[in-house]
Amino acid sequence: MQIAIGLYEGFTALDAIGPFAVFTNMPDTSVVVCADRTGRLTDESALLHLDIEHTFDEVRAPDVVLVPGGLITRRVARDGGPIVDWLRRVHPATTYTTSVCTGALLLGAAGVLDGCRATTHWMVLDQLRAYGAVAADERVVFDGKVVTAAGVSAGIDLALTLVTELQGAETAQAIQLGIEYDPQPPHDSGSPTSASPAVREFVAQIMRDAEARVHATP
Amino acid sequence: MQIAIGLYEGFTALDAIGPFAVFTNMPDTSVVVCADRTGRLTDESALLHLDIEHTFDEVRAPDVVLVPGGLITRRVARDGGPIVDWLRRVHPATTYTTSVCTGALLLGAAGVLDGCRATTHWMVLDQLRAYGAVAADERVVFDGKVVTAAGVSAGIDLALTLVTELQGAETAQAIQLGIEYDPQPPHDSGSPTSASPAVREFVAQIMRDAEARVHATP
Repeated sequence: MQIAIGLYEGFTALDAIGPFAVFTNMPDTSVVVCADRTGRLTDESALLHLDIEHTFDEVRAPDVVLVPGGLITRRVARDGGPIVDWLRRVHPATTYTTSVCTGALLLGAAGVLDGCRATTHWMVLDQLRAYGAVAADERVVFDGKVVTAAGVSAGIDLALTLVTELQGAETAQAIQLGIEYDPQPPHDSGSPTSASPAVREFVAQIMRDAEARVHATP
Repeated sequence: MQIAIGLYEGFTALDAIGPFAVFTNMPDTSVVVCADRTGRLTDESALLHLDIEHTFDEVRAPDVVLVPGGLITRRVARDGGPIVDWLRRVHPATTYTTSVCTGALLLGAAGVLDGCRATTHWMVLDQLRAYGAVAADERVVFDGKVVTAAGVSAGIDLALTLVTELQGAETAQAIQLGIEYDPQPPHDSGSPTSASPAVREFVAQIMRDAEARVHATP
């Protein structure tokens, strides 16, 4: 079983590394982190740099593919790019094609979401409809072999749910205990319905500004 | 305000990237990822490689320092190394010195935990006593300026708690909403008390074997 995590310049690190922490603990599973080219690849914050070893061309038939989100995804989804081409190419033969956060927009651009129930970060949920998807306000959404997660940290829940499907509940429970995933957030503000209206509007404004800055960068 | 995440060969990626996702969204905060040397640095799974830009020598007076765990930490804590030397050097001037998972053993080796209440991954909790610490079976433990988290994913809770201390509840709530941290694990198996005895023994055996393999590698 090969699980491929497909990256691109400007990805959100936790979207990828949450599931990575789960998948790398699965028995009999090989995890590959890949991108358009080898060498340096920088995340959304511009503070974390990966040294990529494997290209999309090397990863032609992964059993599971996962794509993270990032502030840049709306632009990549609109303009296309190697990550979208790769998703389009590998999707037909996968067992599961999955996304975290705004990675769903890239699945949409690759034609994967047409007619699917799907989710993404709450800020861009209505943008899924442009790709023929039925937007579902849920944390992890399965529709056949297409599995999408809500924003950023939801990738951990997606990955544990996927392990349950692929290898059963006991393996998922063992991995959950291994990464001590017994979440105790100090606040109850993790969804747009639990957060206060003031916090929600504050975050929406910050994210709109940050996305505009990213999209203004050549 | 500078927050430094100090890394070393064999660190657990999610231990670092969970807090990284929180800290990089803090206003007026500069986050630096550093290690003994620049260039390629490989994680515990040997599947993720970072390209490090900043050395410990460049990061001399961080306000907050965070060190992740890894299967290798017991050996590093015993034998010493640049990460331990750096922690010892920067700790006196920090506002907060923090660890995730078995990163606590490195704080212990640096002399930071003497007389402190502290926590770490449940598997090695009793090893904290060797460093003069009072082992506390809690998710996030504050003792003065020393803050420790339980295993792997607990770093997200630590970081949000730290933001609350440093910049107030509203900022922490906004970041929580930004990363949509509304955890919904598919199982209730994230702590040694909630997991079944069979799962607990299975994980303990796997982790003992994995640690033995890592420690047998030159």
